[in-house]
Amino acid sequence: MSKDVIIGFLGCGNVGSGAWRLLEGFGADIEHRAGLRFVIRKVLVRDLQKPRDIAFPAGVLTDNPDDVLNDPEIQIVAEFLGGEEPSYTLMRRALNAGKTVVTANKVAFALHWHELQKAAKRNGAGLYYEAAVCGAIPIIHSLEESLQANRIDKIFGIVNGTTNYILTRMSKNAEDYATVLRDAQRLGLAEPDPAADVEGLDAAYKLSILASLAFHGRVPFEDVYVEGITHVSAEDIRCGQELGYTLKLLAIAKRNGLNVETRVHPTFVRSDHPLANVSGSFNAVYLHGHACKEMMFLGRGAGDMPTASAIVSDLERAASSCMHRYPTFENEVNPKVSLRNNTDWQCPFYIRMLAKDEPGVLSRVAKCFADEQVSIAAVQQKGDCHNGRVTLVVITHRAGEKAMQRAITALDGDIATLESMIRVEEE
Amino acid sequence: MSKDVIIGFLGCGNVGSGAWRLLEGFGADIEHRAGLRFVIRKVLVRDLQKPRDIAFPAGVLTDNPDDVLNDPEIQIVAEFLGGEEPSYTLMRRALNAGKTVVTANKVAFALHWHELQKAAKRNGAGLYYEAAVCGAIPIIHSLEESLQANRIDKIFGIVNGTTNYILTRMSKNAEDYATVLRDAQRLGLAEPDPAADVEGLDAAYKLSILASLAFHGRVPFEDVYVEGITHVSAEDIRCGQELGYTLKLLAIAKRNGLNVETRVHPTFVRSDHPLANVSGSFNAVYLHGHACKEMMFLGRGAGDMPTASAIVSDLERAASSCMHRYPTFENEVNPKVSLRNNTDWQCPFYIRMLAKDEPGVLSRVAKCFADEQVSIAAVQQKGDCHNGRVTLVVITHRAGEKAMQRAITALDGDIATLESMIRVEEE
Repeated sequence: MSKDVIIGFLGCGNVGSGAWRLLEGFGADIEHRAGLRFVIRKVLVRDLQKPRDIAFPAGVLTDNPDDVLNDPEIQIVAEFLGGEEPSYTLMRRALNAGKTVVTANKVAFALHWHELQKAAKRNGAGLYYEAAVCGAIPIIHSLEESLQANRIDKIFGIVNGTTNYILTRMSKNAEDYATVLRDAQRLGLAEPDPAADVEGLDAAYKLSILASLAFHGRVPFEDVYVEGITHVSAEDIRCGQELGYTLKLLAIAKRNGLNVETRVHPTFVRSDHPLANVSGSFNAVYLHGHACKEMMFLGRGAGDMPTASAIVSDLERAASSCMHRYPTFENEVNPKVSLRNNTDWQCPFYIRMLAKDEPGVLSRVAKCFADEQVSIAAVQQKGDCHNGRVTLVVITHRAGEKAMQRAITALDGDIATLESMIRVEEE
Repeated sequence: MSKDVIIGFLGCGNVGSGAWRLLEGFGADIEHRAGLRFVIRKVLVRDLQKPRDIAFPAGVLTDNPDDVLNDPEIQIVAEFLGGEEPSYTLMRRALNAGKTVVTANKVAFALHWHELQKAAKRNGAGLYYEAAVCGAIPIIHSLEESLQANRIDKIFGIVNGTTNYILTRMSKNAEDYATVLRDAQRLGLAEPDPAADVEGLDAAYKLSILASLAFHGRVPFEDVYVEGITHVSAEDIRCGQELGYTLKLLAIAKRNGLNVETRVHPTFVRSDHPLANVSGSFNAVYLHGHACKEMMFLGRGAGDMPTASAIVSDLERAASSCMHRYPTFENEVNPKVSLRNNTDWQCPFYIRMLAKDEPGVLSRVAKCFADEQVSIAAVQQKGDCHNGRVTLVVITHRAGEKAMQRAITALDGDIATLESMIRVEEE
């Protein structure tokens, strides 16, 4: 005897269509194995007239959210609208009506996790969001239910496929940013307006969710330092490669006691690090816990079917749960131990400058670093002299972000100008 | 208000001690977050007099299994004895007494999964076994609850850290097998009797569990083809590297309809495949599902604390479940669709021979292949002539295992002798 599970979809773009197709094609297997028969009762769309690939049965499509939210038979609402609103309002309404929510929406979830969770608990409803972070990769579920006996102190994520595709192409073929971005847009791997991806915001939303979950504390999106890849040059990638580094847009979260640092920026990782080999549009999350030690999850972070894989697994978990669980924030339990946002993190830095090719210049450049207690690990002069200037690449030992910023501000433009500053993670 | 969860340990070697230490050091965090207070009531050991690192409270250690199994207050039994017996008998007794079992025992579990699961269901007890496969890596839980909406058609695992350590050293430093094995034994990375690891049995037990779970059908240990790494030569590793391949001991499971092939053997993978970069004692599981596409999990597959990470997460899941779940085998639901064991798999082959250095030899060698419809993709003659013989390396196109075996049996020793035959996985 199968149990009917009545679902409503909010949205049916790429992700929603994937979920529909997976349920249609694989529903018999799920019924056979788990005894659950998913019935999609209503699908909210913006435009009823738009031509669609899927032949929806009559009466399923609607442009009125009330048809989903006020239907007493709908037990689970799956949200694929994306963006903060109206998604947040609609999800809250669903939860307040006692309906379990499954969402793929990193933005609304990262910004309103706390409120959504409170509404879910209050109404005995479930709240599932595996698909909001890294598509098919079960990183949310693993943090919640497989790695929970760990004090996780470090997360490094390649959580945006678009930027990883661009950086991989730039690294492998020495192509420049603008060319590869255009290609990625043509191939559908970058949006016509690529800002959210290439400026690092998409990664920052995901990092806020991952860090909150891993550190059992709220790590607000607003606290994440964000720097995208728009200014990355093929020359820096090449200089890094010569030094044994690969450039990635990393989402980094570290916890040391109650101090937390979260940052998204182009980062040099050692070329033999597992993350260095994550190429193309793949996503990966690398973490370290006090018991599990190093661990990495790699997979498809986007795409209709990989995201549907996460959504349908959440639907099945939601439908077969006899009691929904909610992640606990330590600072909910004990407000005195709130995590603190540390913006003065420490790391090695890669600095590329154009410097005057004359005696005494290196000593004056080095003094700017020394004045801020930034210790230099290596200096290389690259290539020939152009217009009286040579390229100078400096790798520092671990130094404070703020000291480093002061050091490069103190550079005398007359003798050396800063071309780029890229943070390094040594593992 | 915390809930007390009373546990008994069966065994307290490396893995059990790790679980004890993790619960001791992290128990307050678990209580704080999940409201569960784990109390280890009894620990079964073989020798009460043996000196131990852990200062067990008086009365906890016992050498009588009945003290664990007959204690009505013990709700969960965690089994770390290893091996088939007495583990299987003790776990079955625990389940029949209505106690939930958490086990790290791949052997007893792979051999008696079906009986253990039946006993668990019949008695309303839970059966958790994340720690039995790949240590800290949450591959069991992910297959059960995150990737279940996938038709998984392929699993490639590096599931034995000892052999991966040995092959990594042989690959990186061109060292020979015997030297590296001795080093691994000295470092505690290989057992004094290394047979179970180096002959592939450990990997085969794990593969039987992974394949059964992924394919929703019983894949008996006895059906797994097993070949270890004892005959692997530094020369084959080097020849493979020149052709763009890295040698790994892969645990391979493929499903095509109801046909399943499962095999553990040294395998050449392309050097740019994510598995090729899994080095040292790391484990990894790479899989492909019809929705999730390619995915890989990488982490510590052994060691006291990584294994404890999996055990304690299972303990927490077991203790907070209001209803235990059991994986379903399709052939339990419908005996007509039993999986079929396919031993005549297809793959490309790497063949190294010593052949006479004279005209017509290559044509005669090639004829042995052609007679079995094995098509050659590349031939290389390597190095100089020794004793009138040269090294000949052949890479074939995809061919059937049995045809390939017939082809090499047909080689005329007078003109060419087989030195090695290694299967290749092209991805």
